[in-house]
Order: sequence, then structure tokens, then C-alpha cells
Amino acid sequence: MNYFEESLKVHEKNAGKIEVISKVALETRDDLSLAYTPGVAEPCNKIHEDEENVYKYTTKGNLVAVVSDGTAVLGLGDIGAKAAIPVMEGKSILFKGFADVDAFPICLDTKDVDEIVKTVKLMAPVFGGINLEDIAAPRCFEIEDRLKEELDIPVFHDDQHGTAVVTLAGLINALKLTGKKFEDIKVVVNGAGAAGTSIIKLLLLSGVKDIVACDRKGIISRNQEDLNSAKKALAEITNPNNITGTLADAIVGADLFIGVSAPGALKPEMVKSMNKDSIIFAMANPVPEIMPEEAKAAGARVVGTGRSDFPNQVNNVLAFPGIFRGALDVRARQINEEMKLAAAHAIANYIKEEDINEDYVIPSALDKKVALKVAEAVAKAALETGVARIDVLKNY
Amino acid sequence: MNYFEESLKVHEKNAGKIEVISKVALETRDDLSLAYTPGVAEPCNKIHEDEENVYKYTTKGNLVAVVSDGTAVLGLGDIGAKAAIPVMEGKSILFKGFADVDAFPICLDTKDVDEIVKTVKLMAPVFGGINLEDIAAPRCFEIEDRLKEELDIPVFHDDQHGTAVVTLAGLINALKLTGKKFEDIKVVVNGAGAAGTSIIKLLLLSGVKDIVACDRKGIISRNQEDLNSAKKALAEITNPNNITGTLADAIVGADLFIGVSAPGALKPEMVKSMNKDSIIFAMANPVPEIMPEEAKAAGARVVGTGRSDFPNQVNNVLAFPGIFRGALDVRARQINEEMKLAAAHAIANYIKEEDINEDYVIPSALDKKVALKVAEAVAKAALETGVARIDVLKNY
Repeated sequence: MNYFEESLKVHEKNAGKIEVISKVALETRDDLSLAYTPGVAEPCNKIHEDEENVYKYTTKGNLVAVVSDGTAVLGLGDIGAKAAIPVMEGKSILFKGFADVDAFPICLDTKDVDEIVKTVKLMAPVFGGINLEDIAAPRCFEIEDRLKEELDIPVFHDDQHGTAVVTLAGLINALKLTGKKFEDIKVVVNGAGAAGTSIIKLLLLSGVKDIVACDRKGIISRNQEDLNSAKKALAEITNPNNITGTLADAIVGADLFIGVSAPGALKPEMVKSMNKDSIIFAMANPVPEIMPEEAKAAGARVVGTGRSDFPNQVNNVLAFPGIFRGALDVRARQINEEMKLAAAHAIANYIKEEDINEDYVIPSALDKKVALKVAEAVAKAALETGVARIDVLKNY
Repeated sequence: MNYFEESLKVHEKNAGKIEVISKVALETRDDLSLAYTPGVAEPCNKIHEDEENVYKYTTKGNLVAVVSDGTAVLGLGDIGAKAAIPVMEGKSILFKGFADVDAFPICLDTKDVDEIVKTVKLMAPVFGGINLEDIAAPRCFEIEDRLKEELDIPVFHDDQHGTAVVTLAGLINALKLTGKKFEDIKVVVNGAGAAGTSIIKLLLLSGVKDIVACDRKGIISRNQEDLNSAKKALAEITNPNNITGTLADAIVGADLFIGVSAPGALKPEMVKSMNKDSIIFAMANPVPEIMPEEAKAAGARVVGTGRSDFPNQVNNVLAFPGIFRGALDVRARQINEEMKLAAAHAIANYIKEEDINEDYVIPSALDKKVALKVAEAVAKAALETGVARIDVLKNY
């Protein structure tokens, strides 16, 4: 199938992918009097009396805004708010299809951090959560940080954390397979943008000690003077031996390569220089840093990519629907690191230990049962870390 | 039925009234590859190449934002953004139920005109139209004017124009019944807020010469020095003889009373002082300016209210779904006065001349066929006045 051609047809057929429908009847005079005037005045009054009632009488508690400024859309780059809509509509229907979360695309006609933060804050009353999407680094970091600070609902930049959670899930199972431990592995992360940064943070939290981050110029070290603030912060928490050089230098003896960079960035010779039982997540899309067969031929044991036509697909849809489902279910004020770790472990544990093999460290992106497991783990972690406003766990 | 109690139950049962669903399948790997990556890149590219393609490949062309700041919600006043949500969700589902327009509630946490205008502009890329709702006067005038000026999609403040359109529709049929002409009637409009102002403008456009507007202080005249800018503008276009006094003074010999004011504002003695075959639209909600039986007893021939339990209900749902349906269908850049007049005539003409009687000058709010007639008339008016971007009329 020619996905591009067919996709145009699918999008044109219905003019877009989302629809806003009613959950209540609108046929009789009584229906109208209850859903609208005069009856609707009463839920309004109840919310006016006590703001928390907004969760009881409106859709807020199940509604997520998928917010983008269109500056880093897929691999297409800065294509603008309107051109970003098909992706944000797509994300919205994945939320609904995988976790029954109602989600709505908000594509903003500005690249100004202050304006984006302000706009999201002003329209936050109707939403129970904010999913940031396809916003270019380093702006995305500041936007997420400020919104997390200023809003009392979960704010989650999926390009960073969704990818990180699923990568970590794959790694958990790959380590089970290879018998290696987080504490002992040597890791190279190629690509120091939004996703790379979040991956590094989750790996550190999981106990990894030795991570070297690379960007287009090579190894990020504390010697460099020309780093932006985000990369400077990264240099502080990675590269324990403060080595310098190229990706080829960094990767010698590594156990794990994580690529969130560019097609072909990882050469077979580099894979050959890695440690025994090496693990590779090559997530450049649509063409990975190295093709799985090449990596295998060069000695890699486990290879994952972002693609659905190879084994071990790192697909965010395994994470974000369940993460928001769980966060919304306990009305979490935020999605913290513990909740992300819980999500990664839930995804990993979805595969029984005896079923794990080189081609199966990550569940299928099509398996909609994963989201419920993730939701349960995330809700539990929210309760345990004190960020939940409902203290009863739902029966998942 | 106790509408208030039952309405709480309806709202609580489903936690709100709207749901965002997918128009495309999401079951197989191919489904995902077409609705999301990698296929979705192609509609993005097409829109990036030519912005107009946003109407072809996204929901924009059928999507309306229902925007409120929560400052004039029903009769409840300034209850805030969150407490306004049930009304905006209600409006959204009426759009869908009556005209298959997808609509989404946007409740803004600010009362600042600049912030509201800016926010709506920034999030406009995903929307094909903006319906302003329950924003207090005189702020609502400036917000609507500025958004109309700065956006290339229809902006419509329903509290003003929806009410005006349906009132005019009722009047058209009431005049047929009484044999009076727009040019000859003497009109008193009590209430000079958002709705009153729009009603006056539509009546003037319809040929009415003698309109006197009253507010709580009595007749608005050009003698007054303490008028705000909106009322000053009103004084310029009404009250041809520049009379002064009270509502009771204004109404002597009037053919038509329009109330968008307060319960009980119109006394039976005032009705008695009106011209023969007088017409009364008493739209204060839930208690009208005068109860229909009282008005009839005092000599009124046609009486309409805002209530569903009396004849001739002036209900905006007869107007806004069809108006936006028509405007969206021809991709109108705005909703101009000609389109509003066309809507009013379509609603009026929905009742066959031989079926018009004192208790039937306005169609039933439950009759969903009205919206299509309105849509057709509005689309045609948009084409004729050159504000349509599609020049083919749909088969309604």
C-alpha cells in the first residue's frame, strides 16, 4: 500500500478525522430543557458554588488538549499551525481509541513561548490535561516547565516523555534477556533534543551510571563553551568521565545505543565496536539510524526502531493514552517521574518473562489492552507519590 | 419534571455532555499508518504547500469554537469560565444535533478584551468559525468587532444576533397576520444590551423607521450625557423624535414591544396603551416581562416569549445551527447582515402563510428541518454578497 496516497484519500473522504458528538439525547422538549436551558443553570450554579464540581458535571475530567505550535511536526519540521492539524487530530483519535480519553487538537498560530504559555493557561478551564506535541526544542522545555508550574492539571510533552517511557520499557526487557543490569551498562544517546533529554533522565532514574550524549558535533562534554542552556544542563548529568570525540569514539564498548537523530547515523563498524549482547534502539523516522538487518549482521542482539514493519516498534501509543487515562482517573495534579517509570514497567511487564525474545521486547502497538495496564500503574504511582486528588483506585 | 434536579442527574451520569470521536478506523496496522504516521505526513505536506488544503484534509471546515469568558451566563451573570462550561457544552451539542456542525467549548479564564481577542486568534487555525457566547456587554461588542476584523472565518455573537434573527422571524409572520408593514410600525425595545442592540439593527435594516430603545433609566435619547459609547451609538440610530420619559411613555401607541430586559417589566396598563393588534416579544428568562395570558387579556394579539411552555418560543436554536451550517458550506469569510436577514426570512417562511396564527408565528424549536432551510438561505446570501469562498450551492 502507498501510505501517502491512501492517507490523503482517508483524510479527504471525511474532511478530517474527528467529530464532536453528544452524550445525551436531544429529541424531546424535555431533553433540551435538561441539556440546555432552563435545566443547565443548575450544574452551572453547582460549579459556581464549588469549582471542584466541574469534574462532576462537565467533560473536563476526561478531556485532553493536544497542543502544538507546528514547529517540529514529525520529521517535517516547522510547517506551521494549520499543516500540523492532521497530526494533532490523529493524536486525538488515538487517545480516544486506545484509552477512551476525549482529546481535542489545539494548533496555535504563534512560536512565542510567552504567548503559548498564556494561551494554554487561559483555555485550561475546559481541559483535564495538556498534551504538548511537536514543539521544537529547546522551546518545548520552557513551555512544559512553565505550564507544569502554573497549572494544576497534568502537562506532558509526549515527544519527550512518551518516547522515553516506551524506550525504557524495551530496555527493561532487553536487559532481562541479556542478563545485564542498569547499574552496569554503558549507554550512548545520539540526539540531544526533546526525546533524547527525557530518555537520559529516565535512564538515570532507573539506575544507569554511564551515559554519553552526542549531538551532530559529537560527544557533549563539560569542556564545550558553545552549548545552549539545555545541552549545558545535559553535560552536567551525563558523561561521567567527561570524554570528548565523535559518536564513533563514544560507542566503543557500549551496551546500548539509543538513536533519536538522523537516518544512517549509526554505521556497522560502530556496532562492531560495541560490547557483547549489544542493544540498539534506532528511532529516526521513517529511516532509522541503522537498518535492523545491518545492525544484527554487525553483532547487535536486540534492535528496536520506530517502524511498524520491523520488530520491537517504539511507538508512543503504548504510553500516552494509558498515562493520561491513569492520571485523569485519580485526577492527578501532574505526571511525575515516578508515574513515567511506572508506565515503562507496566509496558515491559505486559510481556511475560518467558515470552521475551530478541524480536519481542516491546508489545505490539496495536494491542489496546496495554493502555489499561499502564493506566493502572500510573494511577497507583500518582496515589503513592501524593499527586492524586482522588484516593480510590478504579477497578481496571 | 423538576428540570434543575433532573439536569444535575443528566450532567453527572456521563460527566458532561460532549465526546470527541474518530471518523476513521483504528484497528489494523494499516489504519494506524494512514490516520497517523507515516501516512499523515502527506496531508500535512499538502497543507504546508497550500493553506487552503486545510479545508480538504482536516475538520476545520466543519468545526466551530463556542467561546465564552463566563461573564454573562444565562441569567446567572458573571459566574466564571468553569461554571460556564455546561452551557458551552450544551451549545456545542445543539450545533451537532441540529446542523451536524462539530462544535467545541472554549471557556477562557480572563475578562480582558485584549487577552480574549488574542487567545481566539491564536487558536483559530483549527476552527472554521467562532461562536461567541454569554460575554457581557459592552465588552462583547468590541470583542466581536475586532475578531471579525482580524479573522477570515465567520465570527458570530449568538446572544446578540441569534436572538435578533429569531425575533425578526416571529415579527415577519406577526406582521403578515396583522397586515401591518415594517415601514409603518412603532417599536419599543426594552433592554439595550447585546441582544437589544442587534435586534434594533436588524429591524432598521428591515425597513422599520420608528424605534425607541429603553434601558432601566427609561427612554434612551440624544439628550442624555451619561451614556456609554454603545448606548450613545444606539441613541444616534433610534428615537427619531428624540422623546424622553419612561417605558410607559414610550409605549403609548406602539405596535410592537420587544423585551430583553427583566421579569415583569411590562405592565398590563402599558399593553392597554398600545396600538390595535399589538405584538409582544417578552424574552426575559425564565420569567418574561409579562406573562402571555396577562398580555392577551390586556389586548395583545401576538405574544412570544423565551419559554418552551408557551406558544411562539424565541429560541436561538432555530438560528445559529443553520446559520453556521450555511456559512461553513460556502466557506464564508463572515456572517454579514444580509445573511442574518436571510436566516430570519427562512425561519419565518418555514411556516406556510395559511398556517400562521396568533399562537404560531415561530416554528417549533424541536423541528430540526428548520436548520437546513436556514442554511440554504444563508449560503445563498453569502454567495450573493460576495463573502463566500466556494461558489457552488450545495443541494440542501
